[in-house]
Amino acid sequence: MSNTFGNRFRFTIWGQSHAPAIGVTMEGLPAGTAIDFDRLQRFMDRRAPGAKGTTPRKEADRPEFVAGLVDGITCGAPVTAIIYNQNVRRGDYDNLRHVPRPGHADYTAWVKYGDSRDHSGGGQFSGRLTAPLCIAGGICLQLLEEKGIAVEAKLIQVGPEKDPEKFMACIEAAAKAGDSVGGIIECCVSGLPAGLGGPMFDGMENRISQAVFGIPGIKGIEFGSGFAGSAQYGSQNNDPFYLEDGKVVTRTNAHGGILGGITSGMPIVFRVACKPTPSIAIRQDSVDLTNNQETKLSIHGRHDPCIALRAIPCVEAAAAVAVYDAILEE
Amino acid sequence: MSNTFGNRFRFTIWGQSHAPAIGVTMEGLPAGTAIDFDRLQRFMDRRAPGAKGTTPRKEADRPEFVAGLVDGITCGAPVTAIIYNQNVRRGDYDNLRHVPRPGHADYTAWVKYGDSRDHSGGGQFSGRLTAPLCIAGGICLQLLEEKGIAVEAKLIQVGPEKDPEKFMACIEAAAKAGDSVGGIIECCVSGLPAGLGGPMFDGMENRISQAVFGIPGIKGIEFGSGFAGSAQYGSQNNDPFYLEDGKVVTRTNAHGGILGGITSGMPIVFRVACKPTPSIAIRQDSVDLTNNQETKLSIHGRHDPCIALRAIPCVEAAAAVAVYDAILEE
Amino acid sequence: MSNTFGNRFRFTIWGQSHAPAIGVTMEGLPAGTAIDFDRLQRFMDRRAPGAKGTTPRKEADRPEFVAGLVDGITCGAPVTAIIYNQNVRRGDYDNLRHVPRPGHADYTAWVKYGDSRDHSGGGQFSGRLTAPLCIAGGICLQLLEEKGIAVEAKLIQVGPEKDPEKFMACIEAAAKAGDSVGGIIECCVSGLPAGLGGPMFDGMENRISQAVFGIPGIKGIEFGSGFAGSAQYGSQNNDPFYLEDGKVVTRTNAHGGILGGITSGMPIVFRVACKPTPSIAIRQDSVDLTNNQETKLSIHGRHDPCIALRAIPCVEAAAAVAVYDAILEE
Amino acid sequence: MSNTFGNRFRFTIWGQSHAPAIGVTMEGLPAGTAIDFDRLQRFMDRRAPGAKGTTPRKEADRPEFVAGLVDGITCGAPVTAIIYNQNVRRGDYDNLRHVPRPGHADYTAWVKYGDSRDHSGGGQFSGRLTAPLCIAGGICLQLLEEKGIAVEAKLIQVGPEKDPEKFMACIEAAAKAGDSVGGIIECCVSGLPAGLGGPMFDGMENRISQAVFGIPGIKGIEFGSGFAGSAQYGSQNNDPFYLEDGKVVTRTNAHGGILGGITSGMPIVFRVACKPTPSIAIRQDSVDLTNNQETKLSIHGRHDPCIALRAIPCVEAAAAVAVYDAILEE
Repeated sequence: MSNTFGNRFRFTIWGQSHAPAIGVTMEGLPAGTAIDFDRLQRFMDRRAPGAKGTTPRKEADRPEFVAGLVDGITCGAPVTAIIYNQNVRRGDYDNLRHVPRPGHADYTAWVKYGDSRDHSGGGQFSGRLTAPLCIAGGICLQLLEEKGIAVEAKLIQVGPEKDPEKFMACIEAAAKAGDSVGGIIECCVSGLPAGLGGPMFDGMENRISQAVFGIPGIKGIEFGSGFAGSAQYGSQNNDPFYLEDGKVVTRTNAHGGILGGITSGMPIVFRVACKPTPSIAIRQDSVDLTNNQETKLSIHGRHDPCIALRAIPCVEAAAAVAVYDAILEE
Repeated sequence: MSNTFGNRFRFTIWGQSHAPAIGVTMEGLPAGTAIDFDRLQRFMDRRAPGAKGTTPRKEADRPEFVAGLVDGITCGAPVTAIIYNQNVRRGDYDNLRHVPRPGHADYTAWVKYGDSRDHSGGGQFSGRLTAPLCIAGGICLQLLEEKGIAVEAKLIQVGPEKDPEKFMACIEAAAKAGDSVGGIIECCVSGLPAGLGGPMFDGMENRISQAVFGIPGIKGIEFGSGFAGSAQYGSQNNDPFYLEDGKVVTRTNAHGGILGGITSGMPIVFRVACKPTPSIAIRQDSVDLTNNQETKLSIHGRHDPCIALRAIPCVEAAAAVAVYDAILEE
Repeated sequence: MSNTFGNRFRFTIWGQSHAPAIGVTMEGLPAGTAIDFDRLQRFMDRRAPGAKGTTPRKEADRPEFVAGLVDGITCGAPVTAIIYNQNVRRGDYDNLRHVPRPGHADYTAWVKYGDSRDHSGGGQFSGRLTAPLCIAGGICLQLLEEKGIAVEAKLIQVGPEKDPEKFMACIEAAAKAGDSVGGIIECCVSGLPAGLGGPMFDGMENRISQAVFGIPGIKGIEFGSGFAGSAQYGSQNNDPFYLEDGKVVTRTNAHGGILGGITSGMPIVFRVACKPTPSIAIRQDSVDLTNNQETKLSIHGRHDPCIALRAIPCVEAAAAVAVYDAILEE
Repeated sequence: MSNTFGNRFRFTIWGQSHAPAIGVTMEGLPAGTAIDFDRLQRFMDRRAPGAKGTTPRKEADRPEFVAGLVDGITCGAPVTAIIYNQNVRRGDYDNLRHVPRPGHADYTAWVKYGDSRDHSGGGQFSGRLTAPLCIAGGICLQLLEEKGIAVEAKLIQVGPEKDPEKFMACIEAAAKAGDSVGGIIECCVSGLPAGLGGPMFDGMENRISQAVFGIPGIKGIEFGSGFAGSAQYGSQNNDPFYLEDGKVVTRTNAHGGILGGITSGMPIVFRVACKPTPSIAIRQDSVDLTNNQETKLSIHGRHDPCIALRAIPCVEAAAAVAVYDAILEE
């Protein structure tokens, strides 16, 4: 099903941007797992709006755990966490109800679900649904850390800009122009044991991709040398094995920590392409679906000029759930 | 499970390079489906060795259908097709048994499965396992065509070379040097209805990625404008809607035919990064796993200098199974 | 996963008896489905405590729908319904914490989840978790009725008693004696189309069994003539086909509406064996798990003397989710 | 999917009675597992025809392992075993092609798959498909035995007869009368650890039921005291805990080794109701589906008068795959 991820650690994300609540139900967390709620909140806060370069803060996303815990410790039952939506202004987007925003899921949602779709605030396609992903991922990050595994993502490109010092300026310029800008995030998972994953369709690339493409706006992923590696020769791209303190390691990491779908023990390194926020103030061409007429549309309201910024913790969360699930399968 | 793909059209690929056989078991093909075996064979032949730039031909991959058909038509039972391996020389690779080839799954297979792994010919990690994928995909291609859906992949880059006229020269030069070279394949799925797929984890990007990363050697995938789109502004990357013969279409296709995980009706366009064949004649550093000593290794024998060549029909097959599965879910 | 059921209509039940809440998350309900909440509540009320022969009423189980609906109509997103637990007295069962009740999951929960298990009120093993099942089932019952399909369960035996007029007397006598009593429920699903289900592991018997054994206390299920049919000859147990208004029907229904795992168009008829409530006031032998000493235990508090009574709507719910899921697969 | 069972040990059964082959593809067997083929064959032989009271022997069911093994030991890849069908007489049943046999899947197969169904020999609904189940189950039985777990099934009733000494006479009398007879099989799984399975939909009752109803002709299942337990009082049906050599055990086993879906460490005991073979020589009423006319039908040819006989090892196989799968999940 579309909103469910994982084999052994399996979770379902639910909710819509302007529904009473959003949340996540998780199966497979081992009984006896303590959750550090303060730390989880700090992780959640990284994707919350309000930071520089993001939409004005409207609300804290504080998950309420209503099942699966006893005194903050998992009891073996499914764990459900809820975030009640506040600050919901259901009418806000009514003028867009039948005029799909270019680059958005508005049109495809209308095709798939018809007039019953929840259009308000992007409904189930809203970036807001990455909050429950961050609950699941934030818990996995804690569990991975106990095993010495760290997950860290960072922006490595904003629009055409590759110098981190110029990222904010690029975003602000786009915002000022009523425009938006894309970005590339790189994520590294270190401290992994060799042997996680498997061949074919449930390999680490497949799993991480499945999780990462669950984040709205992601349009590409590459592992290790990725697309650049395709321009190379085997003698350049192969990573020679050698011994370090008696352990088999590779001199380079063009394979991005994954060979045959299985972790090699080297860090998993991948990059994801984040498209520019589709919601922009600049006037765009669209179609009115009620009367099948071409029309123009301008989008007002609060929008992140660069969703890649807030996607950083989401990418960490996606990597964490995929890796933790693979660990539970061992 | 690692060798199984799909929700409604679900198949399991089995076999190893030097096992008695390889094959595929498929569930979900509607009863009454006629398979055009000649056409399937021609599709299979596209990935077979022997074509220019590939390893010398050793055997025809002729699937034998042993279950699920009556007079060449599906009867509603699972369909199983087998290819018996011929020309198997199990001893060929014995000198490599404990010296993992850089860039290969040799090392991770040893970590995961230990000495019981099937090392011969790459075992279950062999590119040979893409033959069963092409059986499943070849059947789906026929079923998609009946619905007016075409899937077409092509090489758009070989090593650093982007001019198709120079692809073979680049591959031959690599081969002559005992080296190999990577490549990029672009795939286009046209004729699609809008509305296939869904949000989050079972969207079209997720499904196609899961299938495509099942092909050995693929290290990246991007949809529509992909990584290049990340360098752009929303005003450039958004695809304006307009009407063509009363139908909603987009003027450009930076979204690669997918919005919110759901097909828009525009062609799905994606590109995959294929790494250089890891097996090269050039001497490389490795480690002998029996005595944990560093050593050197040279790989002899028949190897494609550019696996991207033979991966082309495999990418079509991967796209076809993912799309057909999504169609059955409607 | 243990708390998830279904292929196309898939739901996960979560919560514990004394957690802040219990609930259900459902995927696969078609967009545009109107839910009749009053009717759902009336269905829920049938399993609520307080009726004659059940525990004293403590609370109304009123599901709150927090996601997946817009104005009471499904929008295509997962639907989540929550029941906040009131009247929770977490200390109530502390004396039983390490003395497992015979016939209960206390002991196996302790083995599986250790001291982290939620013991209070039976935790995730509580019959209370059938309330979310009734939410899912109650919605399916409405959707089935729109297709002309009716699901009706009834008690056909209480303890040794087969005369419905004596059921309440039998239950009351058991209660007065500090004891409990079992029962048998028969369920009939009528108005079904022929052709639902499939052979082998996903047939209608398999699906209904999987759902029904999700209800605590069910220890057996039989379809059509069931165990009695095993005592017969083929000439007695085979159901002859004939035509009724041009439609193929059977003269008898020993097959219980299912042949080869597939519905025949005749009503699905099955019976389930419900064990006596394990919680009884009569003193029983048990073991103290803290010091591994044999001990005695008497269970006080509110308990249904015959769980079969409240299991009736749960059996309807289980049948409904299994049948509706099979319908969505067509 | 209908022909697939299991979570961690997952297998797909394929083939039809008169297809070129039947077989099974298994994922999840740990690498390094040695299979005792002689023993597997002896187990297979128990369900083969030819024994007293069964159809005349026509062929040995000798599985050929074509993938997943190296020198008889699993290598971590999926394991595929094939049995080529011999002695196939596709024309044999042509007179029955459009006249469904009462009690058989003929009619429902026609409804579901139409004229494309494989009618010959019962197609995919044939009891012959239990041979691949016995391959999977036979391997699991070996793996369970290594863990000290034994699975043993036996006939406890044939038609109305409960005295084993009279079983063969009862079967022979039915055969002589051109009739058939049902039976009840009891299965015991001993040596189990406590803690396998889980609550709700993936408990041991659910899993075993799902597997067992995969055997054609099974119409009921009960665990422990089952239906008889429903006629009792809690004080009779509860199994008191006590200590035996310091281990928690129960004095009786009305719970059939399962509490809350989880094994208690006591033997799992269940009984299954096997209907009388539907194929009988006695003339029966049916309908000609080609012209929608009522007609009569007599079934000739080789048929077991009591399928319960050959179902005994199949029930063991079903129990074994369900239990082994649960063990792998720990």
